[in-house]
Amino acid sequence: MGDIVFGDNQYGKVACRLVRVSHDGQSGRNGLQDITVTTTLAGDFDGPHLHGDNRHLLPTDSHKNAVYALARRHGIGQLEDFGLRLARHLVHDTAPTIRRARIHLQEHPWQRVNATAFRRYSGETRTATITYDGTTAWAVTGIDDLALFQTAGSQFHSFFKDRYTTLPETTDRSYATLIRAQWRHTDLLEGEAWRASYEQSRDSLIDTFCTIRSTSTQQVLHALGRRLLESCPSLAEVRLHMPNLHHPAADLTPFGLDNPGEILIPIDRPHGLMEGTVLRENAPAPGLSWW
Amino acid sequence: MGDIVFGDNQYGKVACRLVRVSHDGQSGRNGLQDITVTTTLAGDFDGPHLHGDNRHLLPTDSHKNAVYALARRHGIGQLEDFGLRLARHLVHDTAPTIRRARIHLQEHPWQRVNATAFRRYSGETRTATITYDGTTAWAVTGIDDLALFQTAGSQFHSFFKDRYTTLPETTDRSYATLIRAQWRHTDLLEGEAWRASYEQSRDSLIDTFCTIRSTSTQQVLHALGRRLLESCPSLAEVRLHMPNLHHPAADLTPFGLDNPGEILIPIDRPHGLMEGTVLRENAPAPGLSWW
Amino acid sequence: MGDIVFGDNQYGKVACRLVRVSHDGQSGRNGLQDITVTTTLAGDFDGPHLHGDNRHLLPTDSHKNAVYALARRHGIGQLEDFGLRLARHLVHDTAPTIRRARIHLQEHPWQRVNATAFRRYSGETRTATITYDGTTAWAVTGIDDLALFQTAGSQFHSFFKDRYTTLPETTDRSYATLIRAQWRHTDLLEGEAWRASYEQSRDSLIDTFCTIRSTSTQQVLHALGRRLLESCPSLAEVRLHMPNLHHPAADLTPFGLDNPGEILIPIDRPHGLMEGTVLRENAPAPGLSWW
Amino acid sequence: MGDIVFGDNQYGKVACRLVRVSHDGQSGRNGLQDITVTTTLAGDFDGPHLHGDNRHLLPTDSHKNAVYALARRHGIGQLEDFGLRLARHLVHDTAPTIRRARIHLQEHPWQRVNATAFRRYSGETRTATITYDGTTAWAVTGIDDLALFQTAGSQFHSFFKDRYTTLPETTDRSYATLIRAQWRHTDLLEGEAWRASYEQSRDSLIDTFCTIRSTSTQQVLHALGRRLLESCPSLAEVRLHMPNLHHPAADLTPFGLDNPGEILIPIDRPHGLMEGTVLRENAPAPGLSWW
Repeated sequence: MGDIVFGDNQYGKVACRLVRVSHDGQSGRNGLQDITVTTTLAGDFDGPHLHGDNRHLLPTDSHKNAVYALARRHGIGQLEDFGLRLARHLVHDTAPTIRRARIHLQEHPWQRVNATAFRRYSGETRTATITYDGTTAWAVTGIDDLALFQTAGSQFHSFFKDRYTTLPETTDRSYATLIRAQWRHTDLLEGEAWRASYEQSRDSLIDTFCTIRSTSTQQVLHALGRRLLESCPSLAEVRLHMPNLHHPAADLTPFGLDNPGEILIPIDRPHGLMEGTVLRENAPAPGLSWW
Repeated sequence: MGDIVFGDNQYGKVACRLVRVSHDGQSGRNGLQDITVTTTLAGDFDGPHLHGDNRHLLPTDSHKNAVYALARRHGIGQLEDFGLRLARHLVHDTAPTIRRARIHLQEHPWQRVNATAFRRYSGETRTATITYDGTTAWAVTGIDDLALFQTAGSQFHSFFKDRYTTLPETTDRSYATLIRAQWRHTDLLEGEAWRASYEQSRDSLIDTFCTIRSTSTQQVLHALGRRLLESCPSLAEVRLHMPNLHHPAADLTPFGLDNPGEILIPIDRPHGLMEGTVLRENAPAPGLSWW
Repeated sequence: MGDIVFGDNQYGKVACRLVRVSHDGQSGRNGLQDITVTTTLAGDFDGPHLHGDNRHLLPTDSHKNAVYALARRHGIGQLEDFGLRLARHLVHDTAPTIRRARIHLQEHPWQRVNATAFRRYSGETRTATITYDGTTAWAVTGIDDLALFQTAGSQFHSFFKDRYTTLPETTDRSYATLIRAQWRHTDLLEGEAWRASYEQSRDSLIDTFCTIRSTSTQQVLHALGRRLLESCPSLAEVRLHMPNLHHPAADLTPFGLDNPGEILIPIDRPHGLMEGTVLRENAPAPGLSWW
Repeated sequence: MGDIVFGDNQYGKVACRLVRVSHDGQSGRNGLQDITVTTTLAGDFDGPHLHGDNRHLLPTDSHKNAVYALARRHGIGQLEDFGLRLARHLVHDTAPTIRRARIHLQEHPWQRVNATAFRRYSGETRTATITYDGTTAWAVTGIDDLALFQTAGSQFHSFFKDRYTTLPETTDRSYATLIRAQWRHTDLLEGEAWRASYEQSRDSLIDTFCTIRSTSTQQVLHALGRRLLESCPSLAEVRLHMPNLHHPAADLTPFGLDNPGEILIPIDRPHGLMEGTVLRENAPAPGLSWW
């Protein structure tokens, strides 16, 4: 069967948790930022895997230390900027056999209550994925944990029926989903422009979902991607991951009650899952954006 | 060692999930309510346990059906009203050996986006626990999953030191907690008064936490309870369950960096847990409020 | 409404994780023990709660340190012995206002593969709860996460039917549950006797569940408790917490298929929950066993 | 920026839970199989996404129904056979625009106690991923949730040190990991041969991990893959996903205690993650094995 060889490989540190409190001694107004960082490195790691030679192996403990030290030196700021700084450090300032780094970041929102106190808010998670190969950097921004519920106007009918199809057709059902979306930028932004871009993208997703009248969840997915690209010219591509949050109507007929889409039973599993990509035809190639 | 006897026992249905969509055909403005209901029944159940006699055993499947049917007949409204209705049904309209019912309810918040669409918000869970013995009903309202973060002014020093104490003293640390609070009402309210009471209580907790300067988490707990009772005369008792959300400062000295409470590492476990009760001396006895 | 007073309270450290590797240099055969420890202290803590006076407040960080230091000094051994040692330390060797301690312990099993390597096994969690008031110690042992499935012979019929009852009667269904049981000892044991007692109790539960033919889950619960007491004379009381693992049969009639209890759909929620206590009439009083 | 187009997309049903009880009336000896099935379909779905045309869209509800109906018609048997049967059904017997199907399956083990009763065992999850494009089928088998702990002989030293490296070198540490492995078959097997192949592969992984003396976790990963291929000639490729289960030693020096790798603190996050592929040079191309 031929020789055995060592193929693709990568390694890193998963889920470095970090809260940064910025103190403004003068105003007494503190800031709070709560993020989770994951590093992944690729390169030539035959040494440790094949030969027990660790000379060029940077411990993942050092990845973690870099997260905290860079946050102290430079602050965090926008996820994308912090991710790029960390990626550059890992590729340029550490072991020579590291060819590229990917940094995945999540931001967990807190709402300000007063000058120094905050309350956790969990309705969305902002994400960023930065990839850097020593020369080029690619940026993908995203949102996770965005649950939306449309109580009217969703249709699903005229679908294909096989011998195992029992689903009734409907012209007015509820439809809810838990959106994870990622969008690829054509160019790197800087500082507050990342935030503005994120907020515009998020608002586009929410607005599209909450106003569309659809005949399938697939149609919603496509519309979310298309309208996001239409409203944000600097984006090249959108990837959507949309598990259904199913809410079938309870059967109340045994109790002499009708149930016109009013009493619904949330079901965790199984659930439908729609995934799709919408992109510009002439956009720059993705390179290592999605690794 | 004496005869073997059957002691305390109870049974019920855990975590009936229910979403109610109310349709206002005229305005086109729908409502959305998302709750989880758990039933617990106590009474004389020697029949099924000891004698294989199920004549007076109401299946938990029927508890669940009642949740959905009552929601269709009467709507949900305030958690406490719905819990009381369900408790009365279970005690009065079902098996004669049921002596009392406890209903625990949680409400999961969604924010309105437009007339028919909603977005999930996860910063707090409103709870209610209703107990009914056929004659008297007791109501306990609560909040869960309320995470608060105070970035300044929390002290912890001058504490007891034993041979295993290494914790440094501090006069200005961050302090975060995940509050679960429950408060006992002296009287039953009705309808929107439940909501107003809940919001007043929640706001008192947030306001107290976010403005206090404390020398221990215990002092915060007591203040939360005391000020809630002071601001809400109709409450008899408050119970607080407060796990710390620990955020120790990262040690950056190996990198030549100081860290004045700025770069913090959230730690899940182990965590400190403070629990305590604050109550009025002459309040009505709790009866079965806490079962 | 009367003065506001401070009522019951307690505090402690939740979920101290600890793995102990014992090295036998001579034989080269190492041991592995994996436990989780939670401490709870009660006493007079008015100082920190009411007066900002921490003089007698032992930080929970010191609870945690004691867990690790005592494990190094004395090993772990049986959960009950380790819990008792920790409880005595906390009550006698630390702050004078501590009146009693409760230690809850869980043991996570690993199976030996060879002299030094182990594989995690997750079919049960052994637990112990030790309470100590400075004079008397109470011991409760238990099991958690024990999932059992009986594929034949379980009946449920002739139950009470109310207007919301639609559950069909059955004389031969599958029945599965996830057992959490705790049993109170009349006397403290020592060393390996704890392990022998645990294994006998666990085996009694498994044997009873797997051989009983029942007419309700309640009947199973009672039999589990009764037979455990019958087989273990040194136990005074058993408490059982038994959520159903529901497995309704899939409805295959739309596809022209029958389904005689063969194709089942596991349902997470909602689920029925049975709780009950079986005890000896003349057993010693529980004291603070259950706090 | 060019036209907006619709790119890669797929959809399916996630986590169909299924327990099959086989009844042998004659012997009274029942069987129990507990699996989770996820379907993913790809093909030409422009209709529903772009044009609101569902004519060729098979509802995910029908995927789920097929899982249950096929299990009733044919039993489950080995995961790979069941997955292949389901994949063929979805590609050949349903909508014409479906080009390929991927079925991911997990098996949750139960241990037999007697002829009809079982106890859940959770030390491993067997997995299979079957891909079918209407002509060719690819099979990948795997294991998940396999936690292994080596208490001796693991080394990690002589690694690369950057300015943020503080990790001490060690020549004898504990090393634990939670293995997820997947291996690609060169040919389809049938029936019990799948089970034999799985058990041989699993045993190879356990044996390699438990006997190797390594200088890095990377070296362990490579050895696991290489030895699995060496011992199983019918496998073409192995992919390994190995998060560390970190167990740093507790610092007991403040208490005058040493700690020679004995008292360890399990840490959930952050954790190192190693991923790698080992394959035969001349093995058949993977085709759609990994989609």
